[in-house]
Amino acid sequence: MRMPATPSLIALDWGTSSLRAYLLDDTGTVLDSRAEPRGIMQVRDGNFSAVFSEVTANWPPVTSIAAGMIGSANGWVETPYCEAPAGAEELAASLIRVPDSGLHIVPGVATDGENPNVMRGEETQIIGALQLHPELASRSLLVLPGTHSKWVQVVNGRIVDTTTFITGELFAVLREHSILGRNPASDSSYDDAFSRGVLAAQASSQGIAPLLFSVRSLVLTQRLAAGASLEYLSGLLIGDEVRCGLMDGARPDALIGDAELCERYLTTLQLFDETDVTVIDGAAQAGLFCIAERAGLTRAVH
Amino acid sequence: MRMPATPSLIALDWGTSSLRAYLLDDTGTVLDSRAEPRGIMQVRDGNFSAVFSEVTANWPPVTSIAAGMIGSANGWVETPYCEAPAGAEELAASLIRVPDSGLHIVPGVATDGENPNVMRGEETQIIGALQLHPELASRSLLVLPGTHSKWVQVVNGRIVDTTTFITGELFAVLREHSILGRNPASDSSYDDAFSRGVLAAQASSQGIAPLLFSVRSLVLTQRLAAGASLEYLSGLLIGDEVRCGLMDGARPDALIGDAELCERYLTTLQLFDETDVTVIDGAAQAGLFCIAERAGLTRAVH
Repeated sequence: MRMPATPSLIALDWGTSSLRAYLLDDTGTVLDSRAEPRGIMQVRDGNFSAVFSEVTANWPPVTSIAAGMIGSANGWVETPYCEAPAGAEELAASLIRVPDSGLHIVPGVATDGENPNVMRGEETQIIGALQLHPELASRSLLVLPGTHSKWVQVVNGRIVDTTTFITGELFAVLREHSILGRNPASDSSYDDAFSRGVLAAQASSQGIAPLLFSVRSLVLTQRLAAGASLEYLSGLLIGDEVRCGLMDGARPDALIGDAELCERYLTTLQLFDETDVTVIDGAAQAGLFCIAERAGLTRAVH
Repeated sequence: MRMPATPSLIALDWGTSSLRAYLLDDTGTVLDSRAEPRGIMQVRDGNFSAVFSEVTANWPPVTSIAAGMIGSANGWVETPYCEAPAGAEELAASLIRVPDSGLHIVPGVATDGENPNVMRGEETQIIGALQLHPELASRSLLVLPGTHSKWVQVVNGRIVDTTTFITGELFAVLREHSILGRNPASDSSYDDAFSRGVLAAQASSQGIAPLLFSVRSLVLTQRLAAGASLEYLSGLLIGDEVRCGLMDGARPDALIGDAELCERYLTTLQLFDETDVTVIDGAAQAGLFCIAERAGLTRAVH
């Protein structure tokens, strides 16, 4: 007879625009999950405690842990960045407990160098990815596509270096607010327009700057259908990110994140002859469980 | 005794956001000028005729000519692009007369190539610049900073090739709508922040993509004052444009446009060891007069 699963941890992936909550058992298996559009920017009154109660309603009162922008200056409690190199051990040792709450917040990670970088939430996804794919722990390059895409170098299970590309945000602001978004609504039937953008970015040794206006000029000169221009822009931006990311012989091992977005990056990487890239799903909840376990939080309730 | 000047031409530089009107004598000297925030985007009812009457009120009813976005699909009458190579002669031969009006509109210019480009208004400034500086006519590279900066190659008095950088628009949308603009208001006392941005862009062989997030991360890691971040962003974007523009040994001969913006480009070019660049003022009115003269419009009123 199978033992009933024991709820052991509430794990929250609490970002800028969305909140995902997981109820995990003592092996990290997901027993229940909820997703709400209650990212920190959507909690205008700052009453994170109320949102936390709502999203975890009717779940057993087990220990809880959160990662993401909830630990930023605009979140519930600001948690100082953990300096790289940082892995599960360093993160578990640096958890911040929210006063008058059982919630522990995973700190973000700051990487040093001429071009310093910071992350909040991605560090936890990386810890989870290394749990799910232990072969990546010794040395790997992980790509986390998104509003702010991260290319993260991992050595011996620790984050050592990062580059951030604001690709997703750039696409959104250009689409919503620039002349490049003035064309009619995007039409996904132009599925070669994305690849065409990727190839244009790939061929540019100068970067994206001289190419952006082509989104408009190709339409004005009847060389690109107006309805295809946003797919082309997406290809240009992701293509330029990948071109930069692959410089100096770097080769990504895995993609972590939203499935639809990872698909775009896979297509792009294939156009750059990078075909050996794994897509990892479920990294956030695995990372939250791993860090909680390291911190002794999952045992605390038994 | 000096002869009174004879009003001979009304010349309009009618762009997206502003309208500048000049009353010129028969030598092209400016007798009077007016500037109004009545660019085509500000004429919401499309009644360009009424705006034209207002801005030229009390001026003698001489022939008139206009250049800029007034000839676009969103302007008064759409004028087809003149294909490059195009100089004063080709533009004068392609003027479009607005029905029921004495106004002639200068067409824009389209340059071909893998990356086609289009301009409306800049072609006229270039014709004017070549009138004011005939030594630039045989072969030159002219830079017109702005919302959409143009780097234009001139051979034998004709526009032959163009690259467009949406630098000004990119700065505006990132400042207004992205996380990079979230810092406190810019403070011009941080005058080294602009140069710091230029130098960072200059040092990046990959282009701007991996650098944009540094506008935020340098502030979060206390390496850049929050109030300096927009100056730094401006330096990054203009620096990246200049880095691209100077590729393959290209050397700009002149800057044409707004004085304050030309000053930023001069500073940037100096950081790239380009010190022999002329700043040209008054190019639009000189170009409008030259094209009108070529088309025989200035004689028509005598």
